[in-house]
Amino acid sequence: MIQTDIIIVGAGPTGLFAVFEAGLLKLKCHLIDALPQPGGQCSELYPKKPIYDIPGFPEVLAGELVDNLIKQIAPFKPGFTLAERAETIEKLNDGNFLITTNKGTKHKAPVVAIAGGLGSFEPRKPELEDIEKFEEKGVYYMIKNPEDYRGKQVLIAGGGDAALDWAIHLSDMAKKVTLVHRRNEFRGALDSVEKVKEYKKQGKIVLITPAEVIKLNGNGNLESLVLQKQGENNTEETIKVDAFIPLFGLSPKLGPIAKWGFEIEKGAIKVHNSLDYQTNIPGVFAIGDVNTYPGKLKLILCGFHEATLMVQSAYQIINPGKRNILKYTTVSGVNGFDGSKKESPKTVVSKIE
Amino acid sequence: MIQTDIIIVGAGPTGLFAVFEAGLLKLKCHLIDALPQPGGQCSELYPKKPIYDIPGFPEVLAGELVDNLIKQIAPFKPGFTLAERAETIEKLNDGNFLITTNKGTKHKAPVVAIAGGLGSFEPRKPELEDIEKFEEKGVYYMIKNPEDYRGKQVLIAGGGDAALDWAIHLSDMAKKVTLVHRRNEFRGALDSVEKVKEYKKQGKIVLITPAEVIKLNGNGNLESLVLQKQGENNTEETIKVDAFIPLFGLSPKLGPIAKWGFEIEKGAIKVHNSLDYQTNIPGVFAIGDVNTYPGKLKLILCGFHEATLMVQSAYQIINPGKRNILKYTTVSGVNGFDGSKKESPKTVVSKIE
Ligand SMILES: Cc1cc2nc3c(=O)[nH]c(=O)nc-3n(C[C@H](O)[C@H](O)[C@H](O)COP(=O)(O)OP(=O)(O)OC[C@H]3O[C@@H](n4cnc5c(N)ncnc54)[C@H](O)[C@@H]3O)c2cc1C
Ligand SMILES: Cc1cc2nc3c(=O)[nH]c(=O)nc-3n(C[C@H](O)[C@H](O)[C@H](O)COP(=O)(O)OP(=O)(O)OC[C@H]3O[C@@H](n4cnc5c(N)ncnc54)[C@H](O)[C@@H]3O)c2cc1C
Repeated sequence: MIQTDIIIVGAGPTGLFAVFEAGLLKLKCHLIDALPQPGGQCSELYPKKPIYDIPGFPEVLAGELVDNLIKQIAPFKPGFTLAERAETIEKLNDGNFLITTNKGTKHKAPVVAIAGGLGSFEPRKPELEDIEKFEEKGVYYMIKNPEDYRGKQVLIAGGGDAALDWAIHLSDMAKKVTLVHRRNEFRGALDSVEKVKEYKKQGKIVLITPAEVIKLNGNGNLESLVLQKQGENNTEETIKVDAFIPLFGLSPKLGPIAKWGFEIEKGAIKVHNSLDYQTNIPGVFAIGDVNTYPGKLKLILCGFHEATLMVQSAYQIINPGKRNILKYTTVSGVNGFDGSKKESPKTVVSKIE
Repeated sequence: MIQTDIIIVGAGPTGLFAVFEAGLLKLKCHLIDALPQPGGQCSELYPKKPIYDIPGFPEVLAGELVDNLIKQIAPFKPGFTLAERAETIEKLNDGNFLITTNKGTKHKAPVVAIAGGLGSFEPRKPELEDIEKFEEKGVYYMIKNPEDYRGKQVLIAGGGDAALDWAIHLSDMAKKVTLVHRRNEFRGALDSVEKVKEYKKQGKIVLITPAEVIKLNGNGNLESLVLQKQGENNTEETIKVDAFIPLFGLSPKLGPIAKWGFEIEKGAIKVHNSLDYQTNIPGVFAIGDVNTYPGKLKLILCGFHEATLMVQSAYQIINPGKRNILKYTTVSGVNGFDGSKKESPKTVVSKIE
């Protein structure tokens, strides 16, 4: 059982920044995300693209922004349950909420912040007989830890950035990387496409196009798969693999959260005011893309503001009756839960002689 | 007469970022500030101090943040009326607002955003007979353009960062810089104190402490002043100067804005909702530190959010009936009014052979 002050469902930019603002108030956070890495849409959908409207950054790559946020919140030592979907919420008799994931991990806290964005990112799966049987036993829709593939024979299917970039990345550690796509054309960042071309020449990546996986074989674990090469005579080939990784995109689905008893409006959780973005369930807040209220804009900078206001009410719930006076970080510094202290260089008072 | 889409009173971080968000909607802005430089509190009160709670910046100097904002908004070519205080507001028959400064500069626009922070920064003046007579005629409370002092004999009074830093800066161009303080001790950033020590040794700055200016002389323009050196016999000395610059601090006073007909609560303008931060005067918005609403936090990141929501309503006022669909900067890029275009590198579609 994980126990914390605030459980944050969703580790996108909003959820991440909430950790910082909570930390300033000495509240601890634990984040749950269906994706294997933090950053939400920024990490999953456009990590290498520039964002121009983050205040103070004339330009910042989405992935860089996430890296910066992770660095910024590090002193507050957030917990992470990654690659698991928050499935159920329950209000316990002791006033705490209990959130359980699809893998059975349990989290307990007096306050919950839903920062679920457009929803939990779920993979688009290829239509293959018995694919469910092999899931996590040779079939993987997301790469949680590249090291898991060291020395393995890997076959990646897909024609976009994820397929290109993971083929490049895994080629350094896997025994063999095969990249399969049902078209000849790939769609991705120029440098990724160029790199795959190069690696193909060097034999670091085996490329098979146009082709499709049509059958999976194995006894318990995946052992091989059948590839159909599109062409004049659609030849079939059986390939030995340890891992088949179809990367056909992850798309967000509001999913379980939709059944947690919130008022839902146009796929988002209605919050009752702009004071603290509390939902109709007291103690549960909704911040970032996942919420809606009059004037709502689904922008990253709005999520930051909402997270900041939200933690003020969380503080009141966790410390009833205590008054919290707003302190400037410049003046009071940042006191990490890891014992670190950031503070402004002190002014000196000195005679000049 | 300056004509624009949105007049922004206050060029602090909130006012500056409003220019960017307005620009994305193709609205032009003009900023008015009592200070000679943009940046509000960040530039005037703590430019060299780090801020830790700007999202995405584990640490950023207040002055750097302002520099970044200025760079970010540059494509939208904001106008500036600096070192003038917005004094009066008037609603014209044609629906525009007219804002006039203490220097008589007139600005006209259909929308006004008050981003006045804690108020207009006003200098603390030394109590000297007839000092008003010499204002702008040899007595200056703020340095608008350091070049104005090239080749001049300058006397700066004060014991804080502003006095130290301007003494250092002007020593490069003025004929003579004298720094006077009524105590022996200065209070400032370590490097500023060290530098003044060095410059004193080199003879680039003449230091006189403890001492006070007690009289100003001149016929029309300031010609000389009388300095009283504190000590056993309080000797007096008359010094020829072209400029006397007392830097005893600038402090914000809500000032004229308080008389513009807004509902004022605890020194701030009450806004009627968190939809767009509109005041009781339709078409006039209040954003950043200057406003108040339930849950308000006087933080920079909140001003950014408020500015972003505000310009949506400004767009409706300026383009009645037109619908504005939110576009991501990553997807649509940033089209500057100067013809510049920022955009994400395009995805390529390419055969890999
Ligand atoms: C191509 C593109 C360009 C964009 N450009 C810009 C831009 O220029 N400027 C801008 O401000 N915004 C932009 N956006 C929007 C921006 O990315 C979002 O506003 C932002 O990501 C929202 O952050 P969030 O933290 O609220 O949610 P998200 O980033 O969506 O993160 C939510 C996270 O919650 C997780 N989650 C949801 N439900 C569950 C559950 N039940 N269990 C576990 N995890 C769950 C999801 O897996 C996800 O990781 C862009 C978006 C896209 C797609
Ligand atoms: C020492 C210190 C440390 C701080 N640390 C932090 C921190 O760590 N994090 C954080 O988020 N915030 C911090 N703050 C607060 C932060 O600086 C303010 O929230 C921010 O500056 C507000 O921005 P603003 O643009 O709304 O107003 P301001 O920065 O106050 O700017 C308002 C501007 O409007 C001008 N103005 C007002 N009235 C008129 C008029 N009639 N005519 C012409 N001009 C006018 C003023 O001259 C001023 O330049 C700190 C403040 C101080 C003093």
